[in-house]
Amino acid sequence: MMQQPFGTELNPQLNAHSELQHFLDTDGLNRELIEQILDTATSFFNPADGLIKKVPLLRGKTVANVFFEASTRTRTTFEVAAKRLSADVLNLDINTSATSKGESLLDTIKNLQAMQVDMFVMRHADSGAAHFLAQHVAPHVSVVNAGDGRHAHPSQALLDMFTIRRHKGADFSKLSVAIIGDILHSRVARSQIHALKLLGCKDIRLIGPETLMPNHAEAMGVSCHHELEPALKGLDVMIALRLQKERMQSALLPSEREFFKEYGLTQQRVALAKPDAIVMHPGPTNRGVEIAADVADGKQSVILEQVNVGIAVRMAVMSICLGNRQKEVR
Amino acid sequence: MMQQPFGTELNPQLNAHSELQHFLDTDGLNRELIEQILDTATSFFNPADGLIKKVPLLRGKTVANVFFEASTRTRTTFEVAAKRLSADVLNLDINTSATSKGESLLDTIKNLQAMQVDMFVMRHADSGAAHFLAQHVAPHVSVVNAGDGRHAHPSQALLDMFTIRRHKGADFSKLSVAIIGDILHSRVARSQIHALKLLGCKDIRLIGPETLMPNHAEAMGVSCHHELEPALKGLDVMIALRLQKERMQSALLPSEREFFKEYGLTQQRVALAKPDAIVMHPGPTNRGVEIAADVADGKQSVILEQVNVGIAVRMAVMSICLGNRQKEVR
Amino acid sequence: MMQQPFGTELNPQLNAHSELQHFLDTDGLNRELIEQILDTATSFFNPADGLIKKVPLLRGKTVANVFFEASTRTRTTFEVAAKRLSADVLNLDINTSATSKGESLLDTIKNLQAMQVDMFVMRHADSGAAHFLAQHVAPHVSVVNAGDGRHAHPSQALLDMFTIRRHKGADFSKLSVAIIGDILHSRVARSQIHALKLLGCKDIRLIGPETLMPNHAEAMGVSCHHELEPALKGLDVMIALRLQKERMQSALLPSEREFFKEYGLTQQRVALAKPDAIVMHPGPTNRGVEIAADVADGKQSVILEQVNVGIAVRMAVMSICLGNRQKEVR
Repeated sequence: MMQQPFGTELNPQLNAHSELQHFLDTDGLNRELIEQILDTATSFFNPADGLIKKVPLLRGKTVANVFFEASTRTRTTFEVAAKRLSADVLNLDINTSATSKGESLLDTIKNLQAMQVDMFVMRHADSGAAHFLAQHVAPHVSVVNAGDGRHAHPSQALLDMFTIRRHKGADFSKLSVAIIGDILHSRVARSQIHALKLLGCKDIRLIGPETLMPNHAEAMGVSCHHELEPALKGLDVMIALRLQKERMQSALLPSEREFFKEYGLTQQRVALAKPDAIVMHPGPTNRGVEIAADVADGKQSVILEQVNVGIAVRMAVMSICLGNRQKEVR
Repeated sequence: MMQQPFGTELNPQLNAHSELQHFLDTDGLNRELIEQILDTATSFFNPADGLIKKVPLLRGKTVANVFFEASTRTRTTFEVAAKRLSADVLNLDINTSATSKGESLLDTIKNLQAMQVDMFVMRHADSGAAHFLAQHVAPHVSVVNAGDGRHAHPSQALLDMFTIRRHKGADFSKLSVAIIGDILHSRVARSQIHALKLLGCKDIRLIGPETLMPNHAEAMGVSCHHELEPALKGLDVMIALRLQKERMQSALLPSEREFFKEYGLTQQRVALAKPDAIVMHPGPTNRGVEIAADVADGKQSVILEQVNVGIAVRMAVMSICLGNRQKEVR
Repeated sequence: MMQQPFGTELNPQLNAHSELQHFLDTDGLNRELIEQILDTATSFFNPADGLIKKVPLLRGKTVANVFFEASTRTRTTFEVAAKRLSADVLNLDINTSATSKGESLLDTIKNLQAMQVDMFVMRHADSGAAHFLAQHVAPHVSVVNAGDGRHAHPSQALLDMFTIRRHKGADFSKLSVAIIGDILHSRVARSQIHALKLLGCKDIRLIGPETLMPNHAEAMGVSCHHELEPALKGLDVMIALRLQKERMQSALLPSEREFFKEYGLTQQRVALAKPDAIVMHPGPTNRGVEIAADVADGKQSVILEQVNVGIAVRMAVMSICLGNRQKEVR
């Protein structure tokens, strides 16, 4: 049995055969598991028209989207993915639900599980919530982390890897990738760094102001840069992060305009990277803050493609986890 | 390639073969297209029990109901219609969604399109929003207008035509039809007038106070009447419009009671039309304002039938548009 | 034709052949009908893994969950049950819907019915609302009561009977059952008492403070107890009711702490019943008010099992009612 350490707990996302049974974090995965997900996602595209197929892999299963933080966009991608797998989908906005009657997270989940839910897709403001959940669900139930606090957003990271691989090939050891913006508070960045490293990427550059850079980031095997333009040279991939307005209202940053002046991706700056470099963003974009509108809509941008492949990657994650989980109990 | 002028833009609802690919407005359709929709709708009724069938025409397709103006009633009819076509349905209440994060309409739609949505059913407060959208979606995606500003509500108009045809036969040239109430602000009235004219109706009477009548209405080939009772003589069809409370709070109208006194459909007034005339209303009715309760529930009322046939007519519109749209790109 | 009295009206839940066509109240059922529901529910469990099957019994049918009182939990159980029967499901939160435009309950329902809805699952604050509805729907439409005022919550009562039967056997005449808490305001208690009596239970004990006990309760053939501990002796089943906070804010009860002290189920008190007694609660639990956390999560608790069997029991109710209702009109 191979399990990975996470904090002081074990990582419950692998079963006794080192197969994916929950999807909680890119930390604790390995290259083979990531490539299995990306390859499965590829198989969901119809070669004839490039559209994503509807497949019966989760027919008769129930997927509950349990969002403790509102996010119509992410919730919708999981809803579409589940429906294209032919699952039944429950959308639960927990703010207006049982917790207002004093139920704990675990109470809520155990009740839903008793309603014959097979998979929980959960977003929660607390880091570690998905791990906690995975340790308490029944043996036939899978948990997918749709974002937990500042900790992880692994489905976003894997759809980013899918997009990079599609454009730049499977050999990540030759790629230079930058992640730009508020690294410190970003669960997306954290998950991306782990995924890039597992796929063999050796040149990962974090770019942002000192106040938004984690301490000891270099210990993760990345390089840190506070000046944008010199750090763009030779890049294959530029990933701009979404700047959260909450951060800007705090003392960490002077203003949106100033951020754009220092770190915003403009056409001029994008031209400093390789000519065929791609521009990525997890969305929704703040145009004129972390990215210029003409870059977001420009020829090098793959932002909408990220959204599209996100459906196939989420389908892959959901079908692999639930398949492995339920073969255990049959 | 036959396209119709709309304002300064071309009408994108027909493809190069003059087939319906979006459904935006009754203006720009023709008699053949309307009759194709009505005949297709007829085919969805089960002759044995009069109920609407479930058919697999949109199996594997995703329909997004994108409502920027709340309307549970209209949204539900499209949701039911899409499900009876076996589509997967996404309901998006955009007030609580991405636009609050500063996304534009086009951003929102492009992101949804990237999530593999095949059809947008959109209601929007801005006139022309559906046309704008149709000009920007991908080649495999259809747009259905569920009401845009004061401009058009074409699915309502076509379900009304279906209802009239069922009761009065296909020869509209012999029919006298009145539309009663706030013509000026009504997208329903505008769409009905175009549809009635395309089907050959020669006697279309608009009835309402001068303040609620569009300027130069006669130029549309209709007659205008400010007094109700004389204008009811010889009618086959009476359509009462819903009076919007917002209008009544403005200076345009003195009071609900006064409106009812002047323009409300009572049993006594209905008796002035032909004995077999039908009474229609797009719903929900304001009983005691534009229509008396005993007329709304009376023998000549077909108001609930309008709701019922609306499911079949919307199924027809959705399946025809998406069929034509997607055969283009395969 | 066998119909049961309800207040001054007839009970419309049975058809001319004494078969269930609506599901409104346990009052007016009989032992055979209840056992038919419980046996049908049993058939939905997969013997191999204990999970509830997905079956095509309501394929092509539309179920509308119409909740005038918010209850995500109960609404979700009906949504899951309908989807496991392969129905299409509409969820309608009526607070934000048509009624705000001045529509009556009957208007709202008649419009939904015209949209080809086959079954209404309704929760409403008014006692008798579901009966009223059942008397006005079309011949092919069924009504299921998901809770009406203080009157009835029959699906909760039947899932409780299922749970008791599974643990204690089908002979209810040998069982001693207590219902503990706010009996007076509880639609759950009222429905449970009728169901227990129909199944032959002879020892039904109502336990609670005098202020929360209905007048003349003994006339229902039960015993009333104001002191908890002596009344627990010899019990097979203890059902704690949820204490509504609204009640506690009124003068009826001094405080949550005091209620727990007098009537809360603790391990010590549970030990006064039979050693194999089961502890039930309709959920969600107020831990530390009507039940101690270690009892709710303890070995004798079947609270989550109640939620699980609730799916199967609701599937049984829905499929039996609609089957009987629609064979009438074909």
